[in-house]
Order: sequence, then C-alpha cells, then structure tokens
Amino acid sequence: MAGTVSQPSVQELFEGVRAGNRALIGRAITLIESRNATHQDKAQELLHLLLPYSGGAQRVGISGVPGVGKSTFIEGLGCWLIEEKAKRVAVLAVDPSSGRTGGSILGDKTRMERLSADLNAFIRPSPSSGVLGGVARATRETMIVLEAAGFDVVLVETVGTGQSETMVSEMVDFFLVLMLPGAGDELQGIKKGILELADMVAVNKADAFEEKLKQALREYKSALHIMTDASPNWHPPVVTMSGLKGTGVPELWENIEKHARIMEESGERQARRDDQRISWLKNQIADRLLNSFYADAAVNEAYRHLLIDVKEGKKTVSAAVDQLLGLYHPEKG
Amino acid sequence: MAGTVSQPSVQELFEGVRAGNRALIGRAITLIESRNATHQDKAQELLHLLLPYSGGAQRVGISGVPGVGKSTFIEGLGCWLIEEKAKRVAVLAVDPSSGRTGGSILGDKTRMERLSADLNAFIRPSPSSGVLGGVARATRETMIVLEAAGFDVVLVETVGTGQSETMVSEMVDFFLVLMLPGAGDELQGIKKGILELADMVAVNKADAFEEKLKQALREYKSALHIMTDASPNWHPPVVTMSGLKGTGVPELWENIEKHARIMEESGERQARRDDQRISWLKNQIADRLLNSFYADAAVNEAYRHLLIDVKEGKKTVSAAVDQLLGLYHPEKG
Repeated sequence: MAGTVSQPSVQELFEGVRAGNRALIGRAITLIESRNATHQDKAQELLHLLLPYSGGAQRVGISGVPGVGKSTFIEGLGCWLIEEKAKRVAVLAVDPSSGRTGGSILGDKTRMERLSADLNAFIRPSPSSGVLGGVARATRETMIVLEAAGFDVVLVETVGTGQSETMVSEMVDFFLVLMLPGAGDELQGIKKGILELADMVAVNKADAFEEKLKQALREYKSALHIMTDASPNWHPPVVTMSGLKGTGVPELWENIEKHARIMEESGERQARRDDQRISWLKNQIADRLLNSFYADAAVNEAYRHLLIDVKEGKKTVSAAVDQLLGLYHPEKG
Repeated sequence: MAGTVSQPSVQELFEGVRAGNRALIGRAITLIESRNATHQDKAQELLHLLLPYSGGAQRVGISGVPGVGKSTFIEGLGCWLIEEKAKRVAVLAVDPSSGRTGGSILGDKTRMERLSADLNAFIRPSPSSGVLGGVARATRETMIVLEAAGFDVVLVETVGTGQSETMVSEMVDFFLVLMLPGAGDELQGIKKGILELADMVAVNKADAFEEKLKQALREYKSALHIMTDASPNWHPPVVTMSGLKGTGVPELWENIEKHARIMEESGERQARRDDQRISWLKNQIADRLLNSFYADAAVNEAYRHLLIDVKEGKKTVSAAVDQLLGLYHPEKG
C-alpha cells in the first residue's frame, strides 16, 4: 500500500534500541503504543528482550497545573543535565486528555526547541489512547525501551489535574510537584492528594511573585508538615526557582540526587520499584478483568437495567452484584 | 441444639425493625454481618423489604486518630442531639482492624455509658470481618436497617489510620475529621488524604493545649485553603471544641445543619448519594470479581510463579497478565 513503511523485525528493533538509534527507538515506541493485536505481540517480544537492560535510569515525575511553567522548566532542566552533568535525558508526557482534546502537552515540540534539537535528548509526547490504563501501560513500557537505549534520566511530565499524577508517581523514583507562589488563589486549584505524592515541591516563577512568595512557602511547608512522610528517611522539601531565568535548577537537582543516595543506601529505592511493579501487575489485572467483564454482552445488558434499579432503590447493591457475577463466563483464552 | 436461638422470619424481622424493636434490629444486623450463605440470602430479602423506608437519616462520618477523643465526643454529641434536638441517634463503627486485634472501637460499650443506656440511641460496634470490602458492605446495609427503623442521625465512627476513612466518606453526607491542637507532632500522623475528605475539621481538647491551638488552627486552615473544595458551595471550616468539657458542640452541629441545608437546596445531597450508590455498586463488582479471580485454583497457581518472574524482570507485566486472564473461566453461576 502506498505510504506504508516496511516494519523492522523485532531483532532489528532490539539492536537499534540498544545502539541508541533514534529512528528505531521511535518505531519501537510506536509499536508499544499500538492497540493492534499483532503489533502488541511484537511489542511484547521486543520488551522481553529489552527487559534485562532496563532499570538504569533515574526516573523523575514532574507535575503541576497548566500555566505553572512545566515545559520551560523541563527544557531548562534537561539542557542543564546534558551540559553540566553529561547525562542523556528522555522526556515522556502522560496526558490522558490528549486523545480527546487533540492538544497534548509536549505535542507541540517547538515549546522545547533547544532540548528537542539536542542529540542527547529524546522527547516523546503522550500516547493518544484516551484510556488511563492504556496510557500507563504504554508509558511504563516506553520507559523500558528508553532505559535499554541508555538514557540516564527519564523525566515524565504530567498535568496536575487528574488521576494521572497517582499513576505517574507509581512509576518514578522521585515525584516533583511544581507550584506557583499564588497558593490558595482560585487559579491554583490543587488536585486532591497531589501534595501527598510529592517528594519535593518547587515553587516556580519565584521572581515574578515576590510579594506572595513568603506566604506561599509558609503554606506549602505547613501543608507538608502536617502530613505523614512516605519514607522515614525523607521529608519533602520546598524549594524555589525560576524556570524562565534558569535559577534554582542546580539546588533542585541536588535535592533529587540526595534523595536518590538516601533511597539507594536505605534499600528503599529497590523496594519502591519492586512495589511499583507488583502494583502495576495487580492494577493491570484489575483493569483488564473489569474491562472484559463490562464488555460481556450479557453482563452489559443486565448492568444497564440494574443500575436504574439500584439508583431507584428497587434493588440492593449486593443483589445486583450477585446477578451480574452469575452472568459472566469468559471464553477459554 | 442447646443454646441455639430460633431465627425470626424475614417478615418478623421486617416488622420488628419498622417498629423500632431493639432486639430485632440487633438480630437483623447480625444477619447482615453473617457470611453464611443462607443468612446472606435472608439478609438480602430483608433489605429488599426495608429499602423503600431507608434514606431518611442525616449520615455523618467521624474520623480521627486514636487518642483524639472520638468516643467522648460522640457520646457528648449523641446525648446533646437526643436531649436538645429530640433526635434518635444511631452510632456505627468501622474498624477493619478489629477482627485482627480483637479490640474494636466501640467494642467496649462502657466507654459510652450514658449514650448506650439511652433508649433513643443505638450503638453497634464494628463488624469483625477483617476484609475492608466486607465491613463496608455490612455497614452500608446496616445503615439501611437503622434508617428504616426511624433513626434521624447515623454517626459512623472510624479510626483515622487506614483506608476506612475513604470508605466511610463514601457512605455519609458529611465527613468530620477530629484533630488535636498539636499539629505536626510525631504523634499526630495524619493519614494521607484525610484532610481532603473533610467537610469540617474540629480541633478537640482545645482547652488542654491552649498555647498550641493558634498555630494548629493556622496550619489546618492553611492546608484546607490550598486544596480544591469538593463542592462549589462549601468550604470546610475549622472549629474548636472540648469533648470533655462539652463546649463547641452546638456550633459544630450548626455547621453540619448548615451544610445539609446548602446541599439539599443545591441538589448536591441527592447527587452525592446517587454517586455513592453507583460507586458502591462498581466497587462491589470489582471486589468480588477480583476475589473470584484470585481464588481460582489455576490462576492462583500461575500467579505465584508469575509474580516472581515479574519481580526478577524475566517477564513483562503485560505478558503475565495475558497468561493469567487466559486461565480464568468461572463456572456458570
């Protein structure tokens, strides 16, 4: 068919990824993101080969509401890591809304002109699959590809307005939350629970809002202060920076490095990664089992009626669930 | 068999509950809590009859870490509601740990001597089923019984240290979080996310910690301030009280009443209850489907091996999930 590009074999992709071939890395990720069954089989074969070479990167999640300056910050951090720390940096985005709205974070690569032109950087927009579980799977598997390709740092960007934060925090070693100094303003709607995921809060645009900065720092510190730390060895710090002026990046990275050292020495990093992999397994089981359940024709038909009965108080929830489970008989796989 | 009490019929239980017969209310709840299949069938029959008479109570969840003074507060609030507001008050407890430790909140009724002796009150300790999903089901269904029995206020107590808060917040109209003035102290480990569930924070023992009170109020207000409110019509207030001295209870209840009025008028109360019932249905489906999945002999055997393969990086998560789902074939119900 005109316009179709011949597919490289799994072996070619494997070798290409390991050699750091950018075109083949891109092709490998496209394969992973595809929902076509043949592509998925091929992707799983490839991942099986790459898996032993993965795990080497520092995985950092970066979140914050639109307007906080994530792209400018990530570009600055990425360039600084390449130039000052000789790192190879990959940037992924997780934006489950991108499929619906068509406008994805990172979708417009021109927003990271300098970084995307750098051969030591690799930027990949969010997969456009609208389903959160599907985006999570693709992102985690893409991370395996990038680690096997030798990237030292993987930055995972996400918008601070949905469930995607929890998801990203469950696939990284460090979760950074960007905030504006105007805490508490209407504009600053913080997603429920996001502060509790934070390994650090960075207040961006510190220069532009000097008068509000002090109060914001006090509020964030106070909020973090009354929460129980996730690790006995780490209390999330609050730092300031200016993505635009480029100030604060070395101090910020020093905190991430310090966290990595402490987690490494205490064994918490490996434990966190092990836990993440197990809960990923369990989440995928739950996701796919429930999808299969609700997609079952008999279940689906009954569910629509029972939902009304339950809502109108004609049936107890337990009785409705009994009936639905009795209808579910998946075929032999 | 000696010692066995004859079981009242479903019809007898129904009439007894509707008539407010305390002994039969107790028997009905015991039936609901039983995991015996015959009892469960009977319980569902009973609930089906009671369902049309439920929904009339004000449902208030009350949470706080051990030591915050929940029992003293609930006893004071309950007695005050009976004496000053002529309400009939039921108190339930949700403590998923009670099955394991043997020591349940509310288990020791002497802790609420005055309230438990009052004929306008009904106190029921946590069901001892160790499984959170089971406790949730029993508590929700018990609420149906108590509402059908004519109680005006149902207080659901829970310990502030686990997932039970989220669960309770999903079955009440108002979620109250009790705190001590010593915010940020090691002792004061706040469960992650609990503040975000709060419709109000009440700082207890306000008299005993006067010097710390001001700072605590500032910290709690500040933490609530930077979070997005769950309702556009309600910002969670922070109030003070003393359960021991009995001060602050009228102001506290006035807030709960005000919230009820606002939610009623805006239609949010019914919407919240509808949402709660739908998510309860979905959660029960997920719980029971996953239980059945993991209990399947073939799945269980394979799961134990795959868990190791995934942990050691020998298999991708997607490949492991494929294999497990292919093994699951529940019998016709």
